[in-house]
Amino acid sequence: MDTKLPRVGTTIFTVMSQLAMEHKAINLGQGFPDFPPPEPMIEALARAARDGRNQYSPMAGIPELREAITAKLEACYGARIDPGAHVTVTSGGSEAIFDAVHAVVRPGDEVVLLDPCYDCYEPAVELAGGVPVHVALDPATFAVDWQAVEAAITPRTRMLFINTPHNPSGAVLGESDITALHGLLERHPRLLLLSDEVYEHMVFDGARHESVLRHPALAARSFAVSSFGKTYHCTGWKLGYAVAPAALSTEFRKVHQYNTFCSFTPAQYAVAHMLREHADHHEELPAFYQAKRDAFRAMLGDTRLRPLPVSGGYFQLVDYSEVSDLDDASFCRWITTEHGVAAIPLSPFYRHPPQGQRLARLCFAKDSATLEAAVARLAKL
Amino acid sequence: MDTKLPRVGTTIFTVMSQLAMEHKAINLGQGFPDFPPPEPMIEALARAARDGRNQYSPMAGIPELREAITAKLEACYGARIDPGAHVTVTSGGSEAIFDAVHAVVRPGDEVVLLDPCYDCYEPAVELAGGVPVHVALDPATFAVDWQAVEAAITPRTRMLFINTPHNPSGAVLGESDITALHGLLERHPRLLLLSDEVYEHMVFDGARHESVLRHPALAARSFAVSSFGKTYHCTGWKLGYAVAPAALSTEFRKVHQYNTFCSFTPAQYAVAHMLREHADHHEELPAFYQAKRDAFRAMLGDTRLRPLPVSGGYFQLVDYSEVSDLDDASFCRWITTEHGVAAIPLSPFYRHPPQGQRLARLCFAKDSATLEAAVARLAKL
Ligand SMILES: CSCCC(=O)C(=O)O
Ligand SMILES: CSCCC(=O)C(=O)O
Repeated sequence: MDTKLPRVGTTIFTVMSQLAMEHKAINLGQGFPDFPPPEPMIEALARAARDGRNQYSPMAGIPELREAITAKLEACYGARIDPGAHVTVTSGGSEAIFDAVHAVVRPGDEVVLLDPCYDCYEPAVELAGGVPVHVALDPATFAVDWQAVEAAITPRTRMLFINTPHNPSGAVLGESDITALHGLLERHPRLLLLSDEVYEHMVFDGARHESVLRHPALAARSFAVSSFGKTYHCTGWKLGYAVAPAALSTEFRKVHQYNTFCSFTPAQYAVAHMLREHADHHEELPAFYQAKRDAFRAMLGDTRLRPLPVSGGYFQLVDYSEVSDLDDASFCRWITTEHGVAAIPLSPFYRHPPQGQRLARLCFAKDSATLEAAVARLAKL
Repeated sequence: MDTKLPRVGTTIFTVMSQLAMEHKAINLGQGFPDFPPPEPMIEALARAARDGRNQYSPMAGIPELREAITAKLEACYGARIDPGAHVTVTSGGSEAIFDAVHAVVRPGDEVVLLDPCYDCYEPAVELAGGVPVHVALDPATFAVDWQAVEAAITPRTRMLFINTPHNPSGAVLGESDITALHGLLERHPRLLLLSDEVYEHMVFDGARHESVLRHPALAARSFAVSSFGKTYHCTGWKLGYAVAPAALSTEFRKVHQYNTFCSFTPAQYAVAHMLREHADHHEELPAFYQAKRDAFRAMLGDTRLRPLPVSGGYFQLVDYSEVSDLDDASFCRWITTEHGVAAIPLSPFYRHPPQGQRLARLCFAKDSATLEAAVARLAKL
């Protein structure tokens, strides 16, 4: 069959998780915690379902949840947002990205992606008939090369994807990036931002998360996307949201309402409960994950894997060139099947993977015992 | 803003549910039950969440659920289906429809829709760059005019949508329709079917549901879509599935994996539990809803609304021409705001609504007390 997405196979996350299962490997590949969500959220879910919250929610999300999101965004970022006009609850961050792209990208529109980037961006753009334009991040630091971004923008450019904290590298955007973004939007009045902030509550070392929602001139041109799956240790809940100005939200909702229409109703009540009654959970998340990062990096000292810096998120890149000269896909298969630890290669995050890069991604959203067991295996490499 | 979906506003279901809320009307508009889902399903949901089933499920759905779906399809339709290759769990029937369209419809491809039809079909086709071609159902019986369908098919036609039991009319496809479909697919080798069967377990008067999955030659060219929200009284759970041949499922999953990736994990366990341990639930559903239909139609005898025949689903069309000469949108607003009963007009289901049609849709998936209270109000019209 002549297919619409000929370059797309099964996602690397599915492939590596399957391989991990087949080989009973410790799965540090696909990004998900191996510890449970907060108890009160589970109880709130059960309560909502028992209390008869099982029918369609409003298409944009239950008002309680949209108001709780708005309050959080004001507390965290000083953002002034209208829960009615600006916030749409989605079935995960990825649905939000898919809807945003389909809402505004037309056939022939160019969309700038910064490689490496999460694997759902490009197929969404291609399905909408858009033309992905790939700009490389700095291969050493994963910083954005704003001159290269500027050079890639044409009159056809409709959207730029940014992602902070960044998957897979753990880099975060800082003040100078925000300044650069302001200039870029000023010079290119047709350009919109898709800001993937699903790891917003995992920024370390006292840095602040540079949400576009802190910056009114950016917010006015952005879809800001987040996901409760990351914040509440429940990646299988597939609940997220997009914040956008009213006109963009209107277009966004046209797609959302004919795609999933609304999201699992009882979970919306459960998450609204957490945001309202347990704000300490997301407030303490940076420290929680920073401790995991630090512990994991210390453990990796026993291995010949060289950890790269991690400023945010729950992934650790490691340079394995002292261990092996295999390409990254082969290396990750090899350690999964032969050494019992699954990792994710970096090349699937690139349109044109850099030659000779020897990096693998490990997820540290795991209990200490899991991380210790994995490192004990990796120490034998 | 120059928008991608200029004809799309907020769905009529959202509009009428909001109006119903504002006016405290009894909501017989948007299709959802006002009674709870089965107790064991709610308990299984709470159990799954407590037992740590909160991370990403496999992209195509948990194996337990896909196997239970397969077993049901074999028991109900004699279908021989491979849960691994053919079944994909989605975040509701509408996501399944959206993904199927995006998987195979290319810019310029024509897609035949039979009017009146559910409102998510056309925007999905348009977002994929397809060209919707509208063919009218028989205005009196809502039967398919197969000659008109044949005449609408061109070398560019990629897909035909069918929907049985039919929303909004309650018509069902029968043997002669299936024969016609066989001929159509034989004559048009590029044509695929999108078979929306979300009301599959609500076929009345001893008739059988004509799933495309009963008919291998149809199944080989179809996406068959269903939804647990209808079957288990939980429209807010947004869980459904698509069944398609391996090659089509491969393309379908490429879209699904970058759209929602997977669906709410605990609910998948809960529904798998129902399918496996409580098959009586779906087996008894036709009788359950037939009783509601009959009771509601009997009650409507007290009104000047003339009920049309209903062979399946949970909607009752009524002709209100004895009551009012308002167009249907105005009539439905009027009875919502002035008489406290919300209904859905038929015109939003058409690209070109028939002039002078005086029909409204009432949902009878309600407790008897609700239906009685609504009819007491409608009797005053
Ligand atoms: C949807 S599976 C991928 C999970 C994830 O975000 C990652 O591992 O990068
Ligand atoms: C998703 S809201 C519409 C519900 C429905 O199926 C209907 O009322 O026709």
